[in-house]
Amino acid sequence: MDTSLTLCVDGGGSGSRGRLVDPNGIAIAEAAGGPCNPTTDLAAAVAAISELWLQTAGQAAIDPAETGPHRLAIGAAGLVIPEVRDAFADALPAFASTTIVTDGYAALIGAGGGRPCCLIAMGTGAVGHKLMADGRSLQRDGWSWIGGDRGSGAWIGRHAIEHALLARDGLREAGELAAVVNQAIGESEAAALAFLSKLTPGRLAALAPLVAAASHAGDQAAIDIHEHASAHGAALVRALNPAPGEPLYLTGGLSDVLGGRIETYIGRRFDKAQGDVLNGCFLIASGQAPAEVRVIL
Amino acid sequence: MDTSLTLCVDGGGSGSRGRLVDPNGIAIAEAAGGPCNPTTDLAAAVAAISELWLQTAGQAAIDPAETGPHRLAIGAAGLVIPEVRDAFADALPAFASTTIVTDGYAALIGAGGGRPCCLIAMGTGAVGHKLMADGRSLQRDGWSWIGGDRGSGAWIGRHAIEHALLARDGLREAGELAAVVNQAIGESEAAALAFLSKLTPGRLAALAPLVAAASHAGDQAAIDIHEHASAHGAALVRALNPAPGEPLYLTGGLSDVLGGRIETYIGRRFDKAQGDVLNGCFLIASGQAPAEVRVIL
Repeated sequence: MDTSLTLCVDGGGSGSRGRLVDPNGIAIAEAAGGPCNPTTDLAAAVAAISELWLQTAGQAAIDPAETGPHRLAIGAAGLVIPEVRDAFADALPAFASTTIVTDGYAALIGAGGGRPCCLIAMGTGAVGHKLMADGRSLQRDGWSWIGGDRGSGAWIGRHAIEHALLARDGLREAGELAAVVNQAIGESEAAALAFLSKLTPGRLAALAPLVAAASHAGDQAAIDIHEHASAHGAALVRALNPAPGEPLYLTGGLSDVLGGRIETYIGRRFDKAQGDVLNGCFLIASGQAPAEVRVIL
Repeated sequence: MDTSLTLCVDGGGSGSRGRLVDPNGIAIAEAAGGPCNPTTDLAAAVAAISELWLQTAGQAAIDPAETGPHRLAIGAAGLVIPEVRDAFADALPAFASTTIVTDGYAALIGAGGGRPCCLIAMGTGAVGHKLMADGRSLQRDGWSWIGGDRGSGAWIGRHAIEHALLARDGLREAGELAAVVNQAIGESEAAALAFLSKLTPGRLAALAPLVAAASHAGDQAAIDIHEHASAHGAALVRALNPAPGEPLYLTGGLSDVLGGRIETYIGRRFDKAQGDVLNGCFLIASGQAPAEVRVIL
């Protein structure tokens, strides 16, 4: 009888979640930990995994030094670059098996239970994943915030700033959206330049709720930004080319705001996901879903 | 008789130029130095000024320790924030007078000889300046590369990347521009993600020549980006609201590529500038042009 446990980890740039599950996939412990993006900070990512193991092993009353019989399954951001993935694997504690996949692939497997499907995630970034019948997967967008992540929170925030600055320069009528974004940027020239010099994807995405509020209040510029973002979401679905009837999932913080508009553009509804990144990690580590094989088509 | 010399400095983020001029504005020494952006590196900016003084004083055979009788006039990037300007002034060697203005204002004065005029600069960034009859000046755009600098080299580079990534995701036909930009980004997914994670305004603007070449070769996407950038340049002129007959100047590395299109949009020609940033510095320091008084209108 298999008595091994699996520590499943959802690793992200701002924090991580861990869940210890039994061979049937039943959760027996949960924990939250620090940032886990091996590309930006390998040591912190490894430390986060160790901390999640210590916490969940403690809750399950097993000796944390005894990693040998147990499995580790990680879905984490920033793992496309092979050298980073290898260095991360080498630095982790030794478990019976260690499965490392991108967080996007784990989300794809979790959503569809390991069967062919498509998933788009619209959050701070924007990315689409497709699992094909032969077990290979492909990604569309997810190209990061400067020239990619079309329609994402960072993209929405940048377009809100563009609009606010056009209004500031007298080239657009200043409505509700321009007013609230210019207030966030800072009214003085010096404050604005200081704010604009420190923009990150996260800070841009933090402006997205201002766009949602202005859109709700009827500001045409905000409505246009949402329409444009939704059209990008629909194009991302199109780039995945789902077969008729193939499951299609939507995740991410913008799901509520953009989901309905995207559905209108694509002429179908999104399906309800079966599970999340942690469920995907377990299915892959336990052989119930294919290992990650990324292809470029 | 005034025998004082003036060290005029054009300070930029990647390097600086200095010119020592006599009371009639005649150059008696020239030198090039290191980066001079007090916002990003105050110590380096001060060191660059000291080095320019050492070099030009040496060429003019005057004692560099004798700064007392002479004038210093600096037009530099990143000087809008008052605290930065004050700290920079305090850290400089003691001259008979020290005049510090933004590089944009010095360019405006240099171009128009101190008389009311408008100037737009289209380079890595995009900014417009206007000198009014009462001596006050205003700036339009120059809001930096994430949500501003519309039509600039960084803006053109970002739009080229957006187009190339859409082609990569199968959402645009891949023509000449997409091919050369995707080659620059890196063909593999890992190489592309690494390239895209290190983008700066300078790296984006370095892609602008690829757009110019593709536009010249007839690539429609490149032509569209140039048209859009030129429309932004024309809007920047409109934001300055030049009076009929008021001099209007264009500077920056994109002048040759976009100047003709912008002239078509605005229905007039750009005038030939009388001088540059260094000429502007001298005119301001010698009282032949107004001190910088920035206003927000």
